[in-house]
Amino acid sequence: MREPAPILVVGSVALDTVRTPFGEAVEALGGSATHFSAAASFLTPVRLVGVVGQDFTDEHLRPLVERGVDLEGLVRAPGRTFRWSGEYGEDLNNPTTLDTQLNVFASFDPVLPAAWLDTPVVFLANIDPVLQERVVDRMRSPRLVAADTMNYWIGSKPAELRRVLAKVGIFLCNDAEARQLTGRRNLVDAAEEIRRLGPDVVVLKRGEHGVLVFDPEGPFAVPAYPLQRILDPTGAGDAFAGGFLGSLAVDLGRGKPDYRRAAVMGSVMASFQVESFSLERVRSLTPADIEARYLAFERLTRFPAYARE
Amino acid sequence: MREPAPILVVGSVALDTVRTPFGEAVEALGGSATHFSAAASFLTPVRLVGVVGQDFTDEHLRPLVERGVDLEGLVRAPGRTFRWSGEYGEDLNNPTTLDTQLNVFASFDPVLPAAWLDTPVVFLANIDPVLQERVVDRMRSPRLVAADTMNYWIGSKPAELRRVLAKVGIFLCNDAEARQLTGRRNLVDAAEEIRRLGPDVVVLKRGEHGVLVFDPEGPFAVPAYPLQRILDPTGAGDAFAGGFLGSLAVDLGRGKPDYRRAAVMGSVMASFQVESFSLERVRSLTPADIEARYLAFERLTRFPAYARE
Repeated sequence: MREPAPILVVGSVALDTVRTPFGEAVEALGGSATHFSAAASFLTPVRLVGVVGQDFTDEHLRPLVERGVDLEGLVRAPGRTFRWSGEYGEDLNNPTTLDTQLNVFASFDPVLPAAWLDTPVVFLANIDPVLQERVVDRMRSPRLVAADTMNYWIGSKPAELRRVLAKVGIFLCNDAEARQLTGRRNLVDAAEEIRRLGPDVVVLKRGEHGVLVFDPEGPFAVPAYPLQRILDPTGAGDAFAGGFLGSLAVDLGRGKPDYRRAAVMGSVMASFQVESFSLERVRSLTPADIEARYLAFERLTRFPAYARE
Repeated sequence: MREPAPILVVGSVALDTVRTPFGEAVEALGGSATHFSAAASFLTPVRLVGVVGQDFTDEHLRPLVERGVDLEGLVRAPGRTFRWSGEYGEDLNNPTTLDTQLNVFASFDPVLPAAWLDTPVVFLANIDPVLQERVVDRMRSPRLVAADTMNYWIGSKPAELRRVLAKVGIFLCNDAEARQLTGRRNLVDAAEEIRRLGPDVVVLKRGEHGVLVFDPEGPFAVPAYPLQRILDPTGAGDAFAGGFLGSLAVDLGRGKPDYRRAAVMGSVMASFQVESFSLERVRSLTPADIEARYLAFERLTRFPAYARE
């Protein structure tokens, strides 16, 4: 087939209140599935499975509707939408969580529309590994399954998370999570250890330091783009995953997946994500913007061959 | 000319006692000029200006002699050699300094052999900016001058350091130092600010996260090589500088300096430096080792072109 393969994503849809040294967003559209879908939608059709509350309006949803994300799997449940509130310091690294209200997300049980069970690419965003496993078990022979997680699940549900790892081909996490999961300080050791648990490909996200990909062909490193204007890092990891899996979905329509090109596409989408609050920058991207940023990554990383005497 | 241009380096020669989670070295050869010279010596002739005490033996000196470093500018002064002692924790980032004995280094006043004043490439390693300026003022129209520094000088001699910056073409420091020097948190801003102070090229060293180079052609990023076995990061920054300036010295013998190839050569030498204590790994390198590691950096960073539809 020549068409990009569609992606099914399961994750959170949230209303985020975020303060950074450069501004603030109040109850803006956020959540892992949201940021993932917006980024991936530039590359392939996206099917979103999630839950929102009765307070969630059409206005909230507009950016995803505009991006053509299929929302048949987004359930509206009695109660309020998941809310997260956090604040970033000068270094724009780990935010301080000010408030988390799980609301309808506390009893989230993903509902997969029957027509979606054959979706070839699946992204299990950062949710309870019990739910991640339930989703992957219901899918009918997907060609690519990727999962993300967070420190909370590594600490509280290690056995459940290992069952997920045994069932996915690609695992994404940040470097601290890789260390927590494996007890290995060295990232090469940690990635090898994770690959022994199941995934063929491990992607270590390092924020402003870029990404390390470990696949059967060896390590690949791509730096984060050195941006002058970073407003809000929220969602960068999910936008990365969206660009990464979106690129692999395009490859699947053509032949062999290329994890390196995918990691650069992920980095491209993450670089746009951090240039604004919520989805402001990403929702207004054009294909030309994306190609130009990809070329900027080429210029950022290219160097001449070894100079023999 | 076809020959690589010689480099003159001014900096410390020390006896380091270092403990890391992977072992210990006691009174082993160290110092910024030492690590720089050993690395650069694989690319071009190196002339070392420094000072040691009367306790410094031929045995201590052997690795530099073996590497063919010209030691005519290494003065033996009355007293004991500069000693530094430090310990690295699990993360192998900033060491805890356990002891610093400046000894003969406290009254170091670089003595430049007359025949060396025409050396075309100069590296002012991390020493008092007053001494750095004195050296650069004595040199006769060098073609490339680079300087390093540290947080201590940025804090204690800011005006003197700025005078040095106005006289050098290349400045190397780590990201924390760039922020301290400029008061800018964003590294792109910090590098631009430093370039306004004089240097055309700014190299930000980020340890395990690699290097960012800012030159008139825009940013260049090279990751650190993801190594499984890191014994001791001491000297990595100076080994980087040695590979970096060594490569530029080779270029000068041929035409235009290439800062990107130089940054990769610096990263190659730094990657060897951290694989052992003191000079153990670096001193035994072969040209084939260096070329192989350069090719490993190519494999680490290469990715396919943008896939248009």
